[in-house]
Amino acid sequence: MANKAAEAIDFGKTGGVVPVVTVDHASRRVLMVAWMNREAFEETVATGRACYFSRSRNRLWRKGEESGNFQVVREIRLDCDEDTLVLAVEQSGDGAACHLGYESCFFRTLDGDEWRAADTRKVDPAKYGPGYGHQKK
Amino acid sequence: MANKAAEAIDFGKTGGVVPVVTVDHASRRVLMVAWMNREAFEETVATGRACYFSRSRNRLWRKGEESGNFQVVREIRLDCDEDTLVLAVEQSGDGAACHLGYESCFFRTLDGDEWRAADTRKVDPAKYGPGYGHQKK
Repeated sequence: MANKAAEAIDFGKTGGVVPVVTVDHASRRVLMVAWMNREAFEETVATGRACYFSRSRNRLWRKGEESGNFQVVREIRLDCDEDTLVLAVEQSGDGAACHLGYESCFFRTLDGDEWRAADTRKVDPAKYGPGYGHQKK
Repeated sequence: MANKAAEAIDFGKTGGVVPVVTVDHASRRVLMVAWMNREAFEETVATGRACYFSRSRNRLWRKGEESGNFQVVREIRLDCDEDTLVLAVEQSGDGAACHLGYESCFFRTLDGDEWRAADTRKVDPAKYGPGYGHQKK
């Protein structure tokens, strides 16, 4: 699954992984931020489904492997410093990219000196089983 | 400028800084990804202008300090793991968040196994002086 485009990505700066910002292809909303190593990038390009690298689990993380909330990749962008990616995706399943059941992991806004939930849940993540989402990604 | 909201942010996971995704407040487009330490976060909240932490320069980076392309912060969001922020901003000056003169640092898209520039420049960054943008942020 080697892809020549991977050679341009500077995986060395943060220990073999780069940050990945995943946005909704239609609304452009930021859904989540995760990490990719070269293998995850190449699998993502080859399969058309988002595959990240979980730093806490130290392995590839095929988004949706537990919940069915996988992501169909529509576009991949690279930044000027070649060390960050943006994926534009269609969020499948229950439409919840966040392991807490929200559309976006960024469901809290700063209000004065407090963080307040500004969104409503799409789904109760308990439906995916008792262990789901208990490990940070 | 201490802000109680900073206590909720997990700055420890990546050596005292967290990734920050900066989006255009109106269009939601991802403009750039940078880093903040606690001091940068607190200055951003206190002043209403984006202040990052430059890992390469090892100091606070007041966005626009050289170019005038500063960012007025309209909203700050925190993710479920409390280790990543999204800023929604109005991009001032020439409307170029990227040090290469593009609106967004993510001006290249993956086309097969090549990265291709998909956007046009807003401004020639040479106007900001000969040293501008030569140091990675």
